[in-house]
Amino acid sequence: MASAQSPVQPPRSVFVNTLMPEPAHLAVGSGSLPFTTSFTAATDSFHDDRLDDAVARMLKQLENHTGLQIALAPMASKTATLLITVDGPGEAVQSVDENESYSLEVTRQGAHLKAATDVGAMHGLQTFLQLVQTDGAQFFVPAISIQDTPRFRWRGLMVDCGRHYMPVPVLLRILDGMAAVKMNVFHWHLTEDQGFRIESKVFPKLTEMGSDGQFYTQEQARELVAYARERGIRVVPEFDMPGHTQAWFVGYPELASAEGRFQIERGFGVFDPVMDPTRESTYKFLDAFIGEMASIFPDEYMHIGGDEVNGVEWKNNPRIQKFMRAHNLSDTAALQAYFSQRLMEILKKHGKRPVGWDEILSPRLPRDAVVQSWRGFASLAASVKQGYAGILSKGYYLAYLDPAEKFYLVDPIPTKSDLTPEQQALILGGEACMWSVYVNDTIIDSRIWPRTAAIAERLWSPRSVNNVDDMYRRLWVESVRLEALGLTHITQEDMSLRELAGPAVAASAPGIDALHALTSVLQPGGPEDPHRNTLSPFSRLIFALPPDPPSRHNFELLVSDYLQAPAAHDAQRAQLAALFESWIAAQPELLRLISSSPLLEEARPRAEQLAELGTTGLEAVSWLSSGQAAPRGWKEQKLTVLDEAEKLSAAVRFTVLEPLRDLVNSVKDK
Amino acid sequence: MASAQSPVQPPRSVFVNTLMPEPAHLAVGSGSLPFTTSFTAATDSFHDDRLDDAVARMLKQLENHTGLQIALAPMASKTATLLITVDGPGEAVQSVDENESYSLEVTRQGAHLKAATDVGAMHGLQTFLQLVQTDGAQFFVPAISIQDTPRFRWRGLMVDCGRHYMPVPVLLRILDGMAAVKMNVFHWHLTEDQGFRIESKVFPKLTEMGSDGQFYTQEQARELVAYARERGIRVVPEFDMPGHTQAWFVGYPELASAEGRFQIERGFGVFDPVMDPTRESTYKFLDAFIGEMASIFPDEYMHIGGDEVNGVEWKNNPRIQKFMRAHNLSDTAALQAYFSQRLMEILKKHGKRPVGWDEILSPRLPRDAVVQSWRGFASLAASVKQGYAGILSKGYYLAYLDPAEKFYLVDPIPTKSDLTPEQQALILGGEACMWSVYVNDTIIDSRIWPRTAAIAERLWSPRSVNNVDDMYRRLWVESVRLEALGLTHITQEDMSLRELAGPAVAASAPGIDALHALTSVLQPGGPEDPHRNTLSPFSRLIFALPPDPPSRHNFELLVSDYLQAPAAHDAQRAQLAALFESWIAAQPELLRLISSSPLLEEARPRAEQLAELGTTGLEAVSWLSSGQAAPRGWKEQKLTVLDEAEKLSAAVRFTVLEPLRDLVNSVKDK
Repeated sequence: MASAQSPVQPPRSVFVNTLMPEPAHLAVGSGSLPFTTSFTAATDSFHDDRLDDAVARMLKQLENHTGLQIALAPMASKTATLLITVDGPGEAVQSVDENESYSLEVTRQGAHLKAATDVGAMHGLQTFLQLVQTDGAQFFVPAISIQDTPRFRWRGLMVDCGRHYMPVPVLLRILDGMAAVKMNVFHWHLTEDQGFRIESKVFPKLTEMGSDGQFYTQEQARELVAYARERGIRVVPEFDMPGHTQAWFVGYPELASAEGRFQIERGFGVFDPVMDPTRESTYKFLDAFIGEMASIFPDEYMHIGGDEVNGVEWKNNPRIQKFMRAHNLSDTAALQAYFSQRLMEILKKHGKRPVGWDEILSPRLPRDAVVQSWRGFASLAASVKQGYAGILSKGYYLAYLDPAEKFYLVDPIPTKSDLTPEQQALILGGEACMWSVYVNDTIIDSRIWPRTAAIAERLWSPRSVNNVDDMYRRLWVESVRLEALGLTHITQEDMSLRELAGPAVAASAPGIDALHALTSVLQPGGPEDPHRNTLSPFSRLIFALPPDPPSRHNFELLVSDYLQAPAAHDAQRAQLAALFESWIAAQPELLRLISSSPLLEEARPRAEQLAELGTTGLEAVSWLSSGQAAPRGWKEQKLTVLDEAEKLSAAVRFTVLEPLRDLVNSVKDK
Repeated sequence: MASAQSPVQPPRSVFVNTLMPEPAHLAVGSGSLPFTTSFTAATDSFHDDRLDDAVARMLKQLENHTGLQIALAPMASKTATLLITVDGPGEAVQSVDENESYSLEVTRQGAHLKAATDVGAMHGLQTFLQLVQTDGAQFFVPAISIQDTPRFRWRGLMVDCGRHYMPVPVLLRILDGMAAVKMNVFHWHLTEDQGFRIESKVFPKLTEMGSDGQFYTQEQARELVAYARERGIRVVPEFDMPGHTQAWFVGYPELASAEGRFQIERGFGVFDPVMDPTRESTYKFLDAFIGEMASIFPDEYMHIGGDEVNGVEWKNNPRIQKFMRAHNLSDTAALQAYFSQRLMEILKKHGKRPVGWDEILSPRLPRDAVVQSWRGFASLAASVKQGYAGILSKGYYLAYLDPAEKFYLVDPIPTKSDLTPEQQALILGGEACMWSVYVNDTIIDSRIWPRTAAIAERLWSPRSVNNVDDMYRRLWVESVRLEALGLTHITQEDMSLRELAGPAVAASAPGIDALHALTSVLQPGGPEDPHRNTLSPFSRLIFALPPDPPSRHNFELLVSDYLQAPAAHDAQRAQLAALFESWIAAQPELLRLISSSPLLEEARPRAEQLAELGTTGLEAVSWLSSGQAAPRGWKEQKLTVLDEAEKLSAAVRFTVLEPLRDLVNSVKDK
């Protein structure tokens, strides 16, 4: 594969930069600090349980990574290999203003990590972990000097636990992954039309009737908040209102704008049920509910949703229409603004600042609100121009299955922004969003990771860190590191393929191995199946495949390398030819496998196309390397093959079509 | 691969028997019942939450397996595809005498499951799940008639959570696996020298000081018991006494026979610390403790350990020696018997019957005690001859890493037993034992599964079901089914290999693929590293490899097939030659990988031997197929190669040596 350029200059020493996110300032020294069984770590000034636990976790990870069992370091020893100097614990409740900076100096003699707070120190420990590398004979940490601080203060991941419930262990390992790439906000989307997921003791019917028994107890929620805090991560809970609230109404129909009984929603989309903003009883309910939730979630912010209210039920209800006229509320947007205002007064009473989606922006929005933009930068800019803090999510929607590079190049402050420096400062950061319409607890890891690490780098590292090739080089390394934390984003593919092949087939050699020739050049595609609902199984090829598999970018690099000099780049030609031949050779076994499993049947056209793509590639490389022109009609015919392969089929797409098109188009015509 | 013989006669229909465990009686009908989206299941007489939940779980698994979303069946409908007739819930607390039988009739028109209890019905549901198969075009259940009942009433798995703590989700998925193969006792080894793992509110220092913070809360324990009951599994907790109790003494040194302070033990072995059986305060403590535990664990049995007391501290303590003389206790065994007797009175007071290891057998053992034999059948026979019920564990030690077939052929009642029928009836069954000296939460799945499914079959199915080839054929299928429950026994190997290769290497193509040629013919070997302790990392090749990989038995079958007629069996010859060539071809890439990672360095001799084994195999097959004799000295030289490869290295062994030896020995000498 082509070597990639690093934005940090390669040192004369053996240092290979696999840091992710890249630190703000990094200077490489000479030599390295060996990592051996006599390694010790100690704090020399402040330390508390949180810091001690973080150090212990890091040591355990280092032991697992190196296989070297190290002695337990006595704390507060000046002779430690890694000395950790921390000024204090940081804020009692981590805020958006927490000091997260740290510095790390590594020499041949030792390492020194300094930070103002536990949180900064924990970020530094993650950097130290990522620095440990090997020359094949031993492990070492390169001599280096790092001064690091995040570009944005709000680096979040939203997980929708409403449409599909995610068990606690799944969320805990996601928090581990977030901490590894220095993210600091877990936005917990807890309520949806499809499920109410957090226990209320004041209103028990919310989960008794609105969750199918799939919800988080208050104790579990408190434990998750504590687990996150231990890792420098804030937890911002979201209670989406006044829309997306059908599950609330199953137990408490009196909150709704329409009459009658409600069911937990099984479908996906924007639905009519919406809270009744005209009744005082609604606010009394929400006052008690928000008060209860405020006692579980200590973060200064609470997310109140506010998105996608279609206004249908408000328009259809004469009583609500009468209320609107009486209060001079000209349209449903004005009624929603009235509701938001009342709701935010309740938040204020309970000591919480509001976060909401774009739609909450209205003239009477409190000054301390944060607007989260799912609509895009123009909407975000509108908010900050009115003086509101904002965070960007448009462009970071993981459910869209875009390649990491696409997320990576979305900057919360575009280069050509017309915002003043003061307005830019109001952009706190961004959040990756994992909506769970097409995600369950089995596949969520592969939808979040490793792509979210690229978003984490965008939000932490300087704007100038934007080399896509280098990002990918480091991303694949980080992906394997994330796996060691217990995440299943890599192993899930084979596991799911075995399920698709069926146990009887998967049990026999070569079993699913034959599938890899095909699946390694496929990625999930859209649009998704409109007939799916929350109860649908996930046993389809699309859910087995990782978005943005390594093969995609690697193939791009290889073809681009080759095309620089097709006649001369013989190694690349050989590599391409071997790959194309493997696509052709795979077909008989692939078709046999497909014939043995109804779940693989939809992939039959893809298996047939794979061989055609192999032939196309082989012929193109042959013409290109020989320098000869192809016969009349050849190019047209091959482009037709590529066009056919481009069409969505089995809800999956080939990852290799653009470079193949480049190959074909580079062939001379007769 | 060679086809295997099934003890059940193959039917004329397309039925392929992949049931595990095999039912007691099975007759194949003609035709099959299609499985489609209109499938429904319903109970027609008794049903309760436990049964309804089990049916719902089965339907969810069927949907995942087939990809077909089925409508939710209204309960109590006579028109259901699968009708479930259950007489009643079964015992309020599942006992060793629970009726676990069921019958299952499947015709072209529908299926009918009958059972006396929920537990029997749940076993039948598992059988139904295993019956669903595909012809490649659609899914169906073959027409079949099954009357099934277990051969043994006690089919257990012991998990040692003392030496290494296992998080609750790990245990829950183990329970799922047990239910899938109809095991019914989870023996929870909760206390050890290395850790006290269950919260006591009466004696909080037990976990505060004796667990490193790694313990189960009482709420977690109750939830686990409920989860197990939902799946027809009893939970028998073990509090090992009076030895293996060092962790108790960290918080409560007054229980110990020696003076001074105690630490949590980090090493492995049999240690001196032991409870003081001479003090009344010991029994007062145990009375309160057992009473507290009895309120958490409803099972009629409680395991009190009793194993491996070396008596050193009792002999060294003059006060204890004086007590022994005063009570006419002639040796430390007699003192332990005295302790056991006192302890069992306490159990009786709290309504519990005792289970203990062989050592509890003594003249005054209560009649209702169960003896669990880790020492072997002779010891078990001695117990039942004295009228005690017993269960066998010797021969089912998963930590020994033996192949499944070895466990499979261990029968709790050997064919040549001299026991009377009444004595044989006292043998309740057996328990697989997962001691966690060399097992942590990452690798435990691969140590337990799929081998434990073979033990489950031994304990459930008739004695006559003992064809090893057919067991393996079904075991590999069951292994993939077990994975679909969330178990990680298959995926762990690649995950661990990526960790051994290191993230920077594992991230690059072909990454760990090159390792597979080697690891697919290796298995973990012993003896283990004597320097390990409870804190040692698991980053060694031995821990990445599954015991008894499919390649071992498959290679045996292939060679044995080939050797039936080396000159004629050309397909087998070609398959063997291709395999041997792949071993030789893998070497350059393997050595490159090994050079890049200190953690793989120990595998270097194995990589070199692999190529030699490949050459040996190729040459043997060449002589054999040609029918010619090898030159003088050839055989001797090749057997030396095999002898060298047989030696333990890197704590791993080759899986292929015996068949290779057969090949070499079959070559004619000149």
